Amino acid sequence: MSTKYTVGIDFGTLSGRAVLVDVANGREAADCVMDYPHAVMDTTLPGTDLRLPPDFALQHPRDYLDVLFTVVPGVVKKSGVDPADIIGLCIDFTSCTLVPMDEAGTPLCFFDEFKQNPHAYVKLWKHHAAQPYANRINTIAKARGERWLARYGGKISSEWLFPKLWEIADRAPEVWSRMAYAIEAGDWLSWMLTGNRTRNLVVTGYKAIYTPEEGFPSPKFFAACSPCLADVYDKLDLEGTPVVAAGTTVGTLLPEMAEKLGLCPGIAISASTADAHVAAPALGCCRHGDMFGIFGTSACFMVQANEYHEVPGICGVIPDGLMPGTYGYEAGLCCLGDHFAWLAAQAPAEYKAEAEARGIPVIRVLIERAARLAPGESGILALNWWNGNRCILVDSDLSGLFVGMTLQTRPEELMRALIEATAFATRLIFDNFAEHGIPIHRFVAAGGIARKDPFTMQLYADVLGIDIRIAGSTQIPALGSAIYAAAAAGSARGGYDSVFDAVEAMQNVSDTVYHPNPEATAVYDRLYTEYLRLHDYFGRGENDVMKRLRAIRTEAVK
Amino acid sequence: MSTKYTVGIDFGTLSGRAVLVDVANGREAADCVMDYPHAVMDTTLPGTDLRLPPDFALQHPRDYLDVLFTVVPGVVKKSGVDPADIIGLCIDFTSCTLVPMDEAGTPLCFFDEFKQNPHAYVKLWKHHAAQPYANRINTIAKARGERWLARYGGKISSEWLFPKLWEIADRAPEVWSRMAYAIEAGDWLSWMLTGNRTRNLVVTGYKAIYTPEEGFPSPKFFAACSPCLADVYDKLDLEGTPVVAAGTTVGTLLPEMAEKLGLCPGIAISASTADAHVAAPALGCCRHGDMFGIFGTSACFMVQANEYHEVPGICGVIPDGLMPGTYGYEAGLCCLGDHFAWLAAQAPAEYKAEAEARGIPVIRVLIERAARLAPGESGILALNWWNGNRCILVDSDLSGLFVGMTLQTRPEELMRALIEATAFATRLIFDNFAEHGIPIHRFVAAGGIARKDPFTMQLYADVLGIDIRIAGSTQIPALGSAIYAAAAAGSARGGYDSVFDAVEAMQNVSDTVYHPNPEATAVYDRLYTEYLRLHDYFGRGENDVMKRLRAIRTEAVK
Repeated sequence: MSTKYTVGIDFGTLSGRAVLVDVANGREAADCVMDYPHAVMDTTLPGTDLRLPPDFALQHPRDYLDVLFTVVPGVVKKSGVDPADIIGLCIDFTSCTLVPMDEAGTPLCFFDEFKQNPHAYVKLWKHHAAQPYANRINTIAKARGERWLARYGGKISSEWLFPKLWEIADRAPEVWSRMAYAIEAGDWLSWMLTGNRTRNLVVTGYKAIYTPEEGFPSPKFFAACSPCLADVYDKLDLEGTPVVAAGTTVGTLLPEMAEKLGLCPGIAISASTADAHVAAPALGCCRHGDMFGIFGTSACFMVQANEYHEVPGICGVIPDGLMPGTYGYEAGLCCLGDHFAWLAAQAPAEYKAEAEARGIPVIRVLIERAARLAPGESGILALNWWNGNRCILVDSDLSGLFVGMTLQTRPEELMRALIEATAFATRLIFDNFAEHGIPIHRFVAAGGIARKDPFTMQLYADVLGIDIRIAGSTQIPALGSAIYAAAAAGSARGGYDSVFDAVEAMQNVSDTVYHPNPEATAVYDRLYTEYLRLHDYFGRGENDVMKRLRAIRTEAVK
Repeated sequence: MSTKYTVGIDFGTLSGRAVLVDVANGREAADCVMDYPHAVMDTTLPGTDLRLPPDFALQHPRDYLDVLFTVVPGVVKKSGVDPADIIGLCIDFTSCTLVPMDEAGTPLCFFDEFKQNPHAYVKLWKHHAAQPYANRINTIAKARGERWLARYGGKISSEWLFPKLWEIADRAPEVWSRMAYAIEAGDWLSWMLTGNRTRNLVVTGYKAIYTPEEGFPSPKFFAACSPCLADVYDKLDLEGTPVVAAGTTVGTLLPEMAEKLGLCPGIAISASTADAHVAAPALGCCRHGDMFGIFGTSACFMVQANEYHEVPGICGVIPDGLMPGTYGYEAGLCCLGDHFAWLAAQAPAEYKAEAEARGIPVIRVLIERAARLAPGESGILALNWWNGNRCILVDSDLSGLFVGMTLQTRPEELMRALIEATAFATRLIFDNFAEHGIPIHRFVAAGGIARKDPFTMQLYADVLGIDIRIAGSTQIPALGSAIYAAAAAGSARGGYDSVFDAVEAMQNVSDTVYHPNPEATAVYDRLYTEYLRLHDYFGRGENDVMKRLRAIRTEAVK
């Protein structure tokens, strides 16, 4: 039998990327990437003078089609693979990425009447203008004692579906009334490819307050929110839009789409998924006690467990959310690499000069110097809350802290303290899972920092006291999608009948392992104790100075 | 009668400066400055390969003579004043500046046998190698319940006389046994000028644990410290070295010295004083409730009060210490401008580039940008303990803190928070005096920051809620010395019979007054409440994380 391939397509914040993967072993035959022509629209809409309000982050859905029709033919051509050997396709997407559309699946912003209406465009994950609606949802849900709140650590985020939907209903009733379906971008593309409208379980579960057992929040809840949400169930189209897990086919590729993609019609299209969660199969994190982390500008941690536990302060837990048969728990740090970038952006002139002379980014100079210090040598401790705290305090009004500076303190000491603080925060997430019944047995790291920064990964191993394995591919999300595609294709087509079989064959974890150094761990144990004490003092209401400073600041800039 | 003049000579850390002042009105006729040829010796001794131990800060006493014999003739020549019209001279000196010497007043380091012995040289205020001896003195004094401890806020400093003396006795018995007198540099020079050996009241009071009523610590105390201090009273020469207040003559200028100085023999030489305390007459801060502050790398605050109060956490209180008839209280921040310099030293490249393009120091760029923020707008609060805390916690193991950072935080916001924190610390010193019976009625500021930085002074006025007046001269210490010299000369010679009369005529306070802005004060009141809470939490033992971080750091660098 000839070698079979699947296509995984990863839609990120600024670009989309296809990878063609060998189904037998997960080898990547080719990849192709394309930036979105309109990138992120946060100041104006295209072809208009309209200024967008603060905290808007929109995208143009035509960009997704342009990318799709470029990168898929791109990998086919680049690889030289016979399209007849390509047996399936799956899409993962940053989320929640809400596309308001009409009955036919045409995004409303494609119509002239809506071209100047920001609420007709795609609202990206980082569209934070919906925060007031998230706040109201949280308040009302808490007051009503909604059971689903516990599943999301007690608080939902402005980045999720319902705050964005409510914003449309409240601010743009003309868009609301014209909108037939509120659909996630990945599901919209899968619909366009197959003609079948579905919702993927991952985004629906983690970002739209849904489980197969309990469904969405009740009509009574939405009624308590606002009369303008009276017909929200219509927009969700519960009857006509089944919820499907990635690794399951939602249909086969339509002939007209096959032509545009350079693929054969009739191949399996998997339900889509989210770009972080999709790493589970690629990293082989499929079993009870497995955890993986994606270390980028922020950090995402996913844990599998056989049972449901109420774990406070996590982002969400969904049955079958990552892999069939287990509960998938999501946690994360809403700021990781962004901390380091913040410090690097204000690096002193001499550090900048060294970086330029050596042709490396200034952040490397800082991290190199930080790496020369012993654990505890900086004398500095930080609370890594520059962008608030997602887990486990779930409080976006918290802010950053440095303690321990002297006149001898240098920027690399602050850098080291920031890296250490993110590691302590991760350890707290580990401990939180363990305390609530889910000890972590195996940890795999992916993302830019995991791949490029051995110092930081060793520090994490030392702080966590656990071996850290590293992803073997730089295309983990697309690889994960390709694995789901292989499962969706099934063995009859040359794929697999179970996601677990696909994972077994196609996962990609490198041989690199960071083992904890017991001497370093002993020092970090002491620093972690200090971290926890400051964490609780500033984070649990003993001294709400961070919130009062924020309030004073807000008044000052009025 | 012709115009009369006095000479004030200010010996600083790196240079000495003479100013010739018109006795009638305080006008400065000329000044002359000279750097010390050997500067501060903290790595090697001159003409030797001997490496100095850490924390040594020595000077060569020959430099003081060179400066004296250069800057005094310098001002006479520069001014064109007839030496016959110069009626008095006074010296102020950084302190404590201990000169070990023989019976004739020759510094021991002048002798070949001691040229290679660091303990035979002058120990400058910032010679911190005596810290272990200061620690032992504090422990023993506390255990013995020595009453004088309360006068110094509960703790004496390594910068003072007895820690340095003990260091010599313990580490260099050969210097100790050869040393006839341990004399302060200013008193040594006055002795050389007049032939009369005295100690000045200011340095003896504030830095050598002395009051006219109670004298020095008891022989029993020194015996409890160490047998090597058994003959410390001999080195102090209590009988032969009277303690004299500045503004009182210690003798008249010897003919051979008059020749070297270009002055007339027989003119009045005032008792010397210390370079911060000497500002009291120059700033007209002579009465109950008067306070002045010297804003430099660190800050020094002096308060006059009619009564003795036990004020916790101050640096010292001495009757007649600043002006006759009142108690002079000293307090201070051991780090002020050094904070701002620390931040400026790590300013980002773009700030450095702007500074270079505009030909200004980078710290000005930061402060200019900080000045554009409204009170509270930074969202940041700091604890200004980068160099520990002198007042009112008296704890050198404390360290700095920043809280409130976000990904949008810029260096000028940290700068503003640091400036605000030093102002809050000053307000706490004000409040501490007021709570213990000494409300401040009038405040005058001197020093580089008072003169050059209107933004910072306005911020201080806003935080303190008090008018701040600014020194009228850039030579405040030397002017203060010249005022004491005029009092020492007496009216018969054309001077004054009382220091108060001399102050009345010669003080120099500019017309600049910073009035508090009530709106800003209202915001700062709220931030001050937050500052106090963090101050007490980290500074009073509720969470000793700063000390534990320091201990962990010390172990890490071993």
